[in-house]
Amino acid sequence: MDQTILSMIHALDQRVNGMYMKDFLLTWDKEKDDLILILELAATLKKLRERNVSVRVFDTGLGISNFRDNSTRTRFSFASACNLLGMGVQDLDEEKSQISHGETVRETAVMISFLADFIGIRDDIYLGEGNRYMREVAAALDESVAKGVLTQRPGIINLQCDMDHPTQSLSDLLHLQNAFGSLEALKNKRIVMSWAYSPSYGKPLSVPQGIITLMTRFGMHVRLAYPDGYGLIPEVMSQAADFASEHGGSFTTFNSMDKAMQDAHVVYPKSWAPYHVMEQRTQLLMSNDKKGLADLEQECLENNARFSNWTYTQKLKDLTNQKNALYMHCLPADISGVSCIKGEVDADVFETHRLQTYMEAGYKPYIIAAMMLSYRYKSPANVLRTIVERNQTRVLYE
Amino acid sequence: MDQTILSMIHALDQRVNGMYMKDFLLTWDKEKDDLILILELAATLKKLRERNVSVRVFDTGLGISNFRDNSTRTRFSFASACNLLGMGVQDLDEEKSQISHGETVRETAVMISFLADFIGIRDDIYLGEGNRYMREVAAALDESVAKGVLTQRPGIINLQCDMDHPTQSLSDLLHLQNAFGSLEALKNKRIVMSWAYSPSYGKPLSVPQGIITLMTRFGMHVRLAYPDGYGLIPEVMSQAADFASEHGGSFTTFNSMDKAMQDAHVVYPKSWAPYHVMEQRTQLLMSNDKKGLADLEQECLENNARFSNWTYTQKLKDLTNQKNALYMHCLPADISGVSCIKGEVDADVFETHRLQTYMEAGYKPYIIAAMMLSYRYKSPANVLRTIVERNQTRVLYE
Amino acid sequence: MDQTILSMIHALDQRVNGMYMKDFLLTWDKEKDDLILILELAATLKKLRERNVSVRVFDTGLGISNFRDNSTRTRFSFASACNLLGMGVQDLDEEKSQISHGETVRETAVMISFLADFIGIRDDIYLGEGNRYMREVAAALDESVAKGVLTQRPGIINLQCDMDHPTQSLSDLLHLQNAFGSLEALKNKRIVMSWAYSPSYGKPLSVPQGIITLMTRFGMHVRLAYPDGYGLIPEVMSQAADFASEHGGSFTTFNSMDKAMQDAHVVYPKSWAPYHVMEQRTQLLMSNDKKGLADLEQECLENNARFSNWTYTQKLKDLTNQKNALYMHCLPADISGVSCIKGEVDADVFETHRLQTYMEAGYKPYIIAAMMLSYRYKSPANVLRTIVERNQTRVLYE
Repeated sequence: MDQTILSMIHALDQRVNGMYMKDFLLTWDKEKDDLILILELAATLKKLRERNVSVRVFDTGLGISNFRDNSTRTRFSFASACNLLGMGVQDLDEEKSQISHGETVRETAVMISFLADFIGIRDDIYLGEGNRYMREVAAALDESVAKGVLTQRPGIINLQCDMDHPTQSLSDLLHLQNAFGSLEALKNKRIVMSWAYSPSYGKPLSVPQGIITLMTRFGMHVRLAYPDGYGLIPEVMSQAADFASEHGGSFTTFNSMDKAMQDAHVVYPKSWAPYHVMEQRTQLLMSNDKKGLADLEQECLENNARFSNWTYTQKLKDLTNQKNALYMHCLPADISGVSCIKGEVDADVFETHRLQTYMEAGYKPYIIAAMMLSYRYKSPANVLRTIVERNQTRVLYE
Repeated sequence: MDQTILSMIHALDQRVNGMYMKDFLLTWDKEKDDLILILELAATLKKLRERNVSVRVFDTGLGISNFRDNSTRTRFSFASACNLLGMGVQDLDEEKSQISHGETVRETAVMISFLADFIGIRDDIYLGEGNRYMREVAAALDESVAKGVLTQRPGIINLQCDMDHPTQSLSDLLHLQNAFGSLEALKNKRIVMSWAYSPSYGKPLSVPQGIITLMTRFGMHVRLAYPDGYGLIPEVMSQAADFASEHGGSFTTFNSMDKAMQDAHVVYPKSWAPYHVMEQRTQLLMSNDKKGLADLEQECLENNARFSNWTYTQKLKDLTNQKNALYMHCLPADISGVSCIKGEVDADVFETHRLQTYMEAGYKPYIIAAMMLSYRYKSPANVLRTIVERNQTRVLYE
Repeated sequence: MDQTILSMIHALDQRVNGMYMKDFLLTWDKEKDDLILILELAATLKKLRERNVSVRVFDTGLGISNFRDNSTRTRFSFASACNLLGMGVQDLDEEKSQISHGETVRETAVMISFLADFIGIRDDIYLGEGNRYMREVAAALDESVAKGVLTQRPGIINLQCDMDHPTQSLSDLLHLQNAFGSLEALKNKRIVMSWAYSPSYGKPLSVPQGIITLMTRFGMHVRLAYPDGYGLIPEVMSQAADFASEHGGSFTTFNSMDKAMQDAHVVYPKSWAPYHVMEQRTQLLMSNDKKGLADLEQECLENNARFSNWTYTQKLKDLTNQKNALYMHCLPADISGVSCIKGEVDADVFETHRLQTYMEAGYKPYIIAAMMLSYRYKSPANVLRTIVERNQTRVLYE
């Protein structure tokens, strides 16, 4: 095995793994060193696969996906990560819009877990519910392990909830690390997480929340821009501010795209629903108030329309650092004239950054696989060393 | 390998495997020794997995699931069993409510089987149809094997039909064996399979039928309790009676929960639809008579309501042996005040037994895997010996 | 390893693989030698599996299926082929009837491909669209490979488009080869690809087009029979004529089943929609003109009904070579009195050939696996040699 791989593994030895047997629900619950371990592990797994080394650690095993909202990108990322490590995937196909609590959640969690190694959950529709659901599943598993019903505790991975989208934000961070050369180089760089106009409604807050709470931990100057009334969950914004002061960066809010974009190194223009709308919507959904939901949607779209000029354009790009800020998006973007009449970004601007956004997305399977390894192994570095030594090819040589 | 495992395998040597290359459709078609082999094999597979020994016997292979009715528990059990042994799973997603016969069944059965190792089928909606469908699939496979179209015969596993639910009843038996210490200890124990009230309608007869025909073969005193008109298929009840007299237990029917529960060691309160209602329903479904179905449902729910006091309560529990009979359920249970206003069991009673029912469910993946091994191998003991000798870990060590 | 296998592999050495890292979209884009390589490779893979040799070349890996139209046979064939070679399968479940173009196709293609080895696509509903869609996906992958977004190019396999159905036609050819003893023996044999009556509408042209363009390359006398107005795509018919003159066979059209069947060695009676109807239908579907679609269906069914005597009967069979032409069908067939009142073939005639059609279908998983190996390896023969040498059993011995 070449030196690159070996030195990547050697670097992993420096990290203490605080994630062993702990679910991955929110980045802000993890130590910064843990997050760096995830990044380094993901990069190493990517390199190993590119060199045709099989990183299969499960001779047999099951990953379970529970998508309570639609997903293509994350679904394939989760399936790819499971496959990469040797697990099969089984999908738990619930009624999508149903909030189930109590006995059902507790029981189902155990019923699918007898031979499961991981459960990946997306539940991002209901504010105050998604993350709570994941913790409810986790508590059920803990109880069953304690009582000997389960002889093994499957790890839970948050594939997007109402609070955070850790597999996305860590992929974004790995992309930034590669774009700027190192995590160190991110210090004092200006990143703009900006609300942008979309003709749709009800997009989760998890991506912007994930970005502001993660990038502030790496010394970046994080600017959050949004029109009046489009704020995020106050506690999360406050967490971002705390991280900024702790790690030597800053967290500032703007109510104009123009001002926020000045001299920015990175921009992330993306739509989301206002926090208070998401709260109302959750109440209406839970009381199954169809009339109320239709009214709220109408009202919200009308409100959005007042800010239809919040689009990322060449003119805005010209305001950024060297007129060429790195553009980021979790995809799919609402591209004016392509996927909608008017949306988050102009077509010509998006086109110049399109392949970069694909690259950004491409880290996600490895981030998820890294979360799995760090849940399962006290020392992921030791496992990678074993993997390198056994030297099993992923695809048989000719 | 430790002595526990080796002595478990050694015990398997004592059993003749009558299930080699025979589908698993009904427990009462199998020799008692075969059923014991399944139990022992399942227990051994569970132990091996817990000790991180990979029992992957298929380097590649396919298990096909054909769920003609909804399922979560059994679906995950089947997928888990396939995965445990090294197979991928492919789901045959038919139109759920369609009874297809003749050319379609025969042809589809072969089309999915070219590289298949097992087909798991759930078809429990139509009385007189589910088991027949499985036999139709089996006959199609036999013909194609005989004529050289298939070079390998996939095994069929009944994942619940209108007659029996063998993967459930054998999991239940394994649970009983563990709860009482041995199969021997089950002799002369009193088990009550009781109808219980549910606000839903049309639940299959397969679970109670599976229980009365299986437990009577192990010397238990099986009490079947149901309100007037809620009898099971007469031939199946008669089979249970025969088994009871053959194996030194008894089979008695009761028309009151109170009387049946007296001094019982085990209780299994669960709703089902009356046999004659299931017959009518099948006719109406096959003639697609929506009005008739709605009328029947209405009539049946009204009839159920007359027996809404058939609920397992603390008061009933107090009548049982040492006021603490083992409570069993195939899950999900209709729990009064939790999943419905009034149902099969009171919430406080269920809660004290909840984790036991999870434990009961947890044997199913291993029972299914045991059925697969005993279909595929003349001597499952020999295969386990090979597995132990090769000593492949399921999850790579650090 | 026995001599049969070794000599099969030795024969493969004679073929140059022109398919290495090239998608399999149309048989007429491939060299004849490539097609023969596929046949030989498929036959060898089948033999290896029958002798319990694992041909798993992927220690981990993913095959992605993208069915834009319903499928059971091809879905299971693709899943079986992936499994045979060691890959897991992940299904991309789009909205089925939606034609997506531009950004969506390009982006989705890359999003699912980060860890994918193969993408199997069925898109046969829209004339002029299916094959174009596949090329759009291919172009997106090429771009992302060129720009370093993808470090590995997944191969695309056409699982039926509007133009061709190569996995079907090559299975058909392998069936013919086995039925007549060799490819050489097919020379100068008469095969009738005939339109036949069906009470349904809108069946794709890909099967008849696949047959006439493939069998003309093997020196067969290909007769295409159809009622006035039921012609295929002119360019494809013209391609078939060119192949016929190049390879010493012939390509003739007939407007009567009777005449076409005279002394035929092989018959393939199957319904399809007229080319111009498929064109109209595509326009109506793309403009979402429901009224227009209903009118067209009505008109088309009425037109079909004028040719309801185009059924393959015993009387027609008596006209064929030795009154016993080999009957072929891609299944499911519309069988008079079985799956419809009046259809493509009479029940008694179909029954005598039924198991042969199952045999015909059984080659498809191996054809697909052969396409995968010839995409992935410059020399499939060398890989098979490695496989034989390592001697890994597919199913563990007792």
